[in-house]
Amino acid sequence: MTDVRIKRLNAAQEDFDQALAQLLAWDDSVDHQVNDAVRQILHAVRTRGDAAVLELTETFDRVTATTVADLEMSQERLRQALESIPRQQREALEQAAARIRDYHERQRQASWRYQDEDGTVLGQKVTPLDRAGLYVPGGKAAYPSSVLMNAIPAKVAGVGEVIMVVPTPDGLVNDMVLAAAAIAGVDRVFTIGGAQAVGALAYGTETIPAVDKIVGPGNIYVATAKREVFGTVGIDMIAGPSEILVICDGHTDPDWIAMDLFSQAEHDEQAQSILISPDAVFLDAVEASIRALLPTMERADIIRASLNDRAALIQVADLKQAAAVANRIAPEHLELSVEDPEALLADIRHAGAIFMGRYTAEALGDYCAGPNHVLPTSGTARFSSPLGVYDFQKRSSIIGFSADGASRMGRVASVLARGEGLTAHARSAEYRINDGSTSQA
Amino acid sequence: MTDVRIKRLNAAQEDFDQALAQLLAWDDSVDHQVNDAVRQILHAVRTRGDAAVLELTETFDRVTATTVADLEMSQERLRQALESIPRQQREALEQAAARIRDYHERQRQASWRYQDEDGTVLGQKVTPLDRAGLYVPGGKAAYPSSVLMNAIPAKVAGVGEVIMVVPTPDGLVNDMVLAAAAIAGVDRVFTIGGAQAVGALAYGTETIPAVDKIVGPGNIYVATAKREVFGTVGIDMIAGPSEILVICDGHTDPDWIAMDLFSQAEHDEQAQSILISPDAVFLDAVEASIRALLPTMERADIIRASLNDRAALIQVADLKQAAAVANRIAPEHLELSVEDPEALLADIRHAGAIFMGRYTAEALGDYCAGPNHVLPTSGTARFSSPLGVYDFQKRSSIIGFSADGASRMGRVASVLARGEGLTAHARSAEYRINDGSTSQA
Repeated sequence: MTDVRIKRLNAAQEDFDQALAQLLAWDDSVDHQVNDAVRQILHAVRTRGDAAVLELTETFDRVTATTVADLEMSQERLRQALESIPRQQREALEQAAARIRDYHERQRQASWRYQDEDGTVLGQKVTPLDRAGLYVPGGKAAYPSSVLMNAIPAKVAGVGEVIMVVPTPDGLVNDMVLAAAAIAGVDRVFTIGGAQAVGALAYGTETIPAVDKIVGPGNIYVATAKREVFGTVGIDMIAGPSEILVICDGHTDPDWIAMDLFSQAEHDEQAQSILISPDAVFLDAVEASIRALLPTMERADIIRASLNDRAALIQVADLKQAAAVANRIAPEHLELSVEDPEALLADIRHAGAIFMGRYTAEALGDYCAGPNHVLPTSGTARFSSPLGVYDFQKRSSIIGFSADGASRMGRVASVLARGEGLTAHARSAEYRINDGSTSQA
Repeated sequence: MTDVRIKRLNAAQEDFDQALAQLLAWDDSVDHQVNDAVRQILHAVRTRGDAAVLELTETFDRVTATTVADLEMSQERLRQALESIPRQQREALEQAAARIRDYHERQRQASWRYQDEDGTVLGQKVTPLDRAGLYVPGGKAAYPSSVLMNAIPAKVAGVGEVIMVVPTPDGLVNDMVLAAAAIAGVDRVFTIGGAQAVGALAYGTETIPAVDKIVGPGNIYVATAKREVFGTVGIDMIAGPSEILVICDGHTDPDWIAMDLFSQAEHDEQAQSILISPDAVFLDAVEASIRALLPTMERADIIRASLNDRAALIQVADLKQAAAVANRIAPEHLELSVEDPEALLADIRHAGAIFMGRYTAEALGDYCAGPNHVLPTSGTARFSSPLGVYDFQKRSSIIGFSADGASRMGRVASVLARGEGLTAHARSAEYRINDGSTSQA
C-alpha cells in the first residue's frame, strides 16, 4: 500500500554533516539541449520581433493569431473574469491582495539626503522601475496567488507599467489568474509564454514594450531564458525546488505536521520536506500520521515520490541544535512549531520565511498572510531575500559638493588617485581645489 | 599629433535613436575558451581544494608555497603596511574610509514587525551575511579605494567575517592595498587570485572558509568565475566598462569638463565618456580643450583610444531633452554640471550616481565623497543600484498567527489552495480552523 520510506538522520551520528550535505544536494547542472533551443528562440524574437512571437506561439501553444495585438487581453476581459469566478474565490483573492498590499507597503523605501559640515549634500534617490514584466505559467500549474505575489510589490513600488505574459495552450484560459491580474492592477496582459515571452519582454517587439525586469516562475525553458537575458534586464531569482523545514518540540498534533510536510511535497517530486525534533517518539508519531494520511491525499503519488526521494526526519539533542541545523540548511520555509517560537527565533539566522508557533501553517503564508511567497530556495537564504518592493525600486547616489567641500576633498582624492596612477582623476579633482591659482568656473 | 576624433550627435537628427543605440552597444558575448578554462579551474578547486589552489597559484602567479596557510597574510603584516606607506596617503585613506563609513551607516536596515487586528504578528527580520569574500585585483591595476568601497559596507552591515583575496604575481605586494584592508577591518587576507580564488571562496577548501557572497572587480577570468559560482554564493554585479555622462549648460570651464571626460577614458580603451549640452559652441570649446590637454596626460594613449572609439558630444535642444537622453542611457556616472542641478535632478530617473553642480567632479565620488564607487554599468541602472550595506544584509519574513487569526485566514487559504488544486495546502490550513470539530494541539 503506502510504500513510503523516509530517511532518518540523527545529528549525533558521526557522518551527520556528510549525510545532511547529501540530503540537500541538488543537481542544477545545465541542460545543453534546452540552452540551445532557448538561445535560438531568443535570437528569433530579438531579430524578427512580432513575426517570431506569432510563429512560436502557434508552434508551442497551438494558438493562431494574425497580429500580436490580437494576443493582448483587454482590461475589460480581465474584469469579466473577475465577475465570472465564484464569489467565494473572488472574496478570498481580494482579502489576500489587501493583506499582501498592506504588508508590502511597509517595505517601500524612500529617498534620503543629509548635509555634512562643509555644506556637501549626500544622499540616495530611490525610484521605481519604469516597467516590469511578470511571467505567469499557463495550463495546469496556473497559480493566481503567484500573480498577486509578483504584481502587488511592483505596483506598491510605483512601477509605471506592469506587463503580464501568460500562455494559453490550446486557447485554455484560467479565469482565476485573470481575476487576480485585475485585482493586482496589472496594466497589460499578453497571452504568450515560454522563452519567446521572456525574449519579447527583454528586447521588446513592435507591439510588446521592453521591460526593465522580469519576475515570476516558469518551467526550465522560461528559467533558462531568464538567465540568458539577465544583464539586458533584471530578473528575480532562479528558483530551485520548494522546501519546508519544520522544527517541532514534539507537542504539536502529528497530523498537523504530517500535512504541513505534505503541503510542500505535493508541489512536485523534487520538493523537499524535513522535520527536526529532539523527540524520537514524536518523529515516529509523525511517520505514522504520514502513512495514515497519505492514501487520503489527491496528489498522493507526487507526495510519496517527494518524501521517498528527498524528505528526512532528523533527531537532534535539543532545540539549540535544531536551530544550528536549520541555519546550515537555510530553508525556504521554516516552521517553528514549538511552545516558545520567539526564543527559538533568536537563534535563526538564515531562512526565507519563518512561521512562528503551532497555528502558523506554512500554507497560510503561501496565500494570504501578507508576506511574499516568492522566497530564496536551495540554501540561497544565506545571502538573498524574499521578493519584495525593494526588487522594484533602485537607488541612485546623490553627491553635491560645495566649492569649499570640493576644494577640501579634492586634496584627498588627488592623493589617492595619484597613488593609483590615475592622473586624469587627480587633475579633475585638483581643478576644483581653491588655492588661489586654479581657474574657476 | 593628437589624432582625436570624437563622434558628434544631435538629438534633432532623424536617426538619433539609432545612432545612440549604436554608440551604447557593447559586445558582452561570451568567450568560450575563457569559459572552458574557468570551468576546469573551478572543478579542480572544488574537488581538490588546497592542493589545486597551490598548483594554480604557482602556475599563474609564479608564487610557490607549501601550504595555503603560508599564503595567508597576518593582521600584523597589514598593520606593517599601514605604517609603511607615506603619511599623506595613510591620512587620505583614513579620511576616505571615515566618510564612506558615515554614508553607508545610513543604509543599514533594521528588522521590523507589527501586529494586525487579530493578534497576528507580521514582520521582517534583517540579518547580515555570515561571511563575505572580497576579490581585489593584484599587479598594476591594484586599487586601494576598491578595498574600502567593498569592505566597509560589509563591515557596516555586520558581516561576521570579511575574507579578502588578492593575487601577488611574482610576489609583488601593494602596500597601499594592504593598508586599506587594515583600515577597512578586513578579517583575513589570502594572497591568491584568478578563478581559483573565486572557486576557493565559493566552495571552501581545507584552509579557506566558504563565503556566502563574493564581491569586487576582476579580469575576464574572475568575472566569468563569479558568474559560474552564482547560486552557490551570491555575487555583486558583473561590471561592464566604466562610463560617464556629463550634462553641461555650457557655463563650466571647458578644461574642467574635458578632464572629467578624461578621468573616465583613462580607465581603459572600452570606457565611455559622453557630453551632452544644448550649446554647440561649448561642445566645440570642450573639444578644443580635449585637443590641448590630451598631450599632457600620462595615459594619453588609453584616453585617445577610448575617446575615438566610444566617446560622443551630443547636442540637444535644452536641458529637458538632455535629461531624456540621460534616462535613455541610464549612465553609471552622471554629472549635472549646470547652474541649477536640483531642478534637473527632478527629471533624472536612471543613473548609478549623480554628481550635482560644477564643483562635483566625478573623481571625488571615486575616492572620498562617501557613496560607493561600485555602480551599475551598461544601462543596468534602469534596474539596479550602487553596491551598499543592503547587499550584505538579507531579510527573512516573519509570520506568527494567533489561534484566531489562523482560524480566520485558514478559510481564505483553503479557498485559494483548492482553487489551485493544492489540497494538502488546503487541509494543512483547515486543521487550524476552529469550527469546534477539528483536533487541537
